[in-house]
Amino acid sequence: MRAQNLISALFLIFIVFGSSAMGKGPVRGRRPCRSLVFYFHDIIYNGKNSKNATAAIVGAPAWGNKTILGGKNHFGDLVVFDDPITLDNNLHSTPVGRAQGFYIYDKKDVFTAWLGFSFVFNSTEHKGSINFAGADPLMNKTRDISVVGGTGDFFMARGIATLTTDAFEGEVYFRLCVDIKLYECW
Amino acid sequence: MRAQNLISALFLIFIVFGSSAMGKGPVRGRRPCRSLVFYFHDIIYNGKNSKNATAAIVGAPAWGNKTILGGKNHFGDLVVFDDPITLDNNLHSTPVGRAQGFYIYDKKDVFTAWLGFSFVFNSTEHKGSINFAGADPLMNKTRDISVVGGTGDFFMARGIATLTTDAFEGEVYFRLCVDIKLYECW
Amino acid sequence: MRAQNLISALFLIFIVFGSSAMGKGPVRGRRPCRSLVFYFHDIIYNGKNSKNATAAIVGAPAWGNKTILGGKNHFGDLVVFDDPITLDNNLHSTPVGRAQGFYIYDKKDVFTAWLGFSFVFNSTEHKGSINFAGADPLMNKTRDISVVGGTGDFFMARGIATLTTDAFEGEVYFRLCVDIKLYECW
Repeated sequence: MRAQNLISALFLIFIVFGSSAMGKGPVRGRRPCRSLVFYFHDIIYNGKNSKNATAAIVGAPAWGNKTILGGKNHFGDLVVFDDPITLDNNLHSTPVGRAQGFYIYDKKDVFTAWLGFSFVFNSTEHKGSINFAGADPLMNKTRDISVVGGTGDFFMARGIATLTTDAFEGEVYFRLCVDIKLYECW
Repeated sequence: MRAQNLISALFLIFIVFGSSAMGKGPVRGRRPCRSLVFYFHDIIYNGKNSKNATAAIVGAPAWGNKTILGGKNHFGDLVVFDDPITLDNNLHSTPVGRAQGFYIYDKKDVFTAWLGFSFVFNSTEHKGSINFAGADPLMNKTRDISVVGGTGDFFMARGIATLTTDAFEGEVYFRLCVDIKLYECW
Repeated sequence: MRAQNLISALFLIFIVFGSSAMGKGPVRGRRPCRSLVFYFHDIIYNGKNSKNATAAIVGAPAWGNKTILGGKNHFGDLVVFDDPITLDNNLHSTPVGRAQGFYIYDKKDVFTAWLGFSFVFNSTEHKGSINFAGADPLMNKTRDISVVGGTGDFFMARGIATLTTDAFEGEVYFRLCVDIKLYECW
């Protein structure tokens, strides 16, 4: 009889404690709680393409200018962008959101950039934003940056985004594939 | 007798385990563990107001300049700021801290910016900093950005800050209301 | 007999629950789960040192230029850097990684900057990156910024980095000591 009461007590405690520790708070773990793949498309202003350009050079070192990415692997060029996000690798697909922020080329002897930007969604599929920051050694096949936060559907998200250069054309267009894996989901 | 020992063991384990899981670590959940509301005031340098200005344009696209926010919804203008934080919406109230960092206008067809900044406090009320990052589609009534970290009184904080444009005057002054909700408190 | 079964059940539940809550997820707490100390070295381009420079001014206010840090405590100067990281305070030690990103001087009446950067490692010792953001009131002996994320060996890291100016020479060279304490380790 006492033992049976104990079993009840045990389960009660387990339920109460389990829910307080796991129910209200976020899901976190070594396996992604959410995976998403997107493409975004960057067309840099070169003095002639103001209609199509989605990005512009707004900072440059003393030796640079703002209508062409500079020498020394573009070291010091700061680019602001508002790029369409698509579900496939076609620039002309209907955008599902915008990638907005900046990158700075930050290395003299190889192409490398530092990124601070957001994915901004406002569709039936997704509402909210995902915020990213990190180093992009863009000559590597894949590079990992951090998902540092999110809002709306991505409330408080954290994770890793793996970037791949899917295509580039001269110094005006490039397309990145972004494989987002969230390890904290609320 | 054995059953009574079991009850003791049960509670002992619960206490030990409960404290190890919840006592030393942070509080996290779907409800804010801390809420704070502040205002900050941005006065952009326009070539004439160097005494009062709290912000300056330091990057601009090829078609822009640095004493007036540019066309195309200021696309490409990078602004650095050190703005007073107040508890109410009065520019002349005693500041309780400084909002320091930058924003970049990043969209050609509507006012939108990307923000990276900190609230820095050093008063009897608050010591430490709160670090923010995210997209600010500033024509929306409210916009959510991420609290990506904190120091001092805000050690390891994470959360969401909801921005509202409380006032603006031409292209020189604006005031933001920042409603901070932390969901991770340590 | 029943009581003995209960003990077994109890331990089983404890093990299962304990492992699900603590085994798969990260370690978090008020004591650092990992501590690391590094130095990095910043040599700002001044128009003459292009060979040795590791940093360059790429944004400046209307009254500034890009070969010398400006007046008003460098307010508005945006600097991009790719600095060697060393284990000791010797500029000529073998680098163990690169500190890459930017800082912006953001206060008129005292030296203060805002930092967004990464430590990028690719050695036998460390592979991966640590991402930082925060305010740097650099006249203070120590300043705390946030570790907002990490990749590779520093997967999903969060913590605090305490900065100390270890040395500076005029307005061309400075060396920071970075004492990293992680409070979330995965």
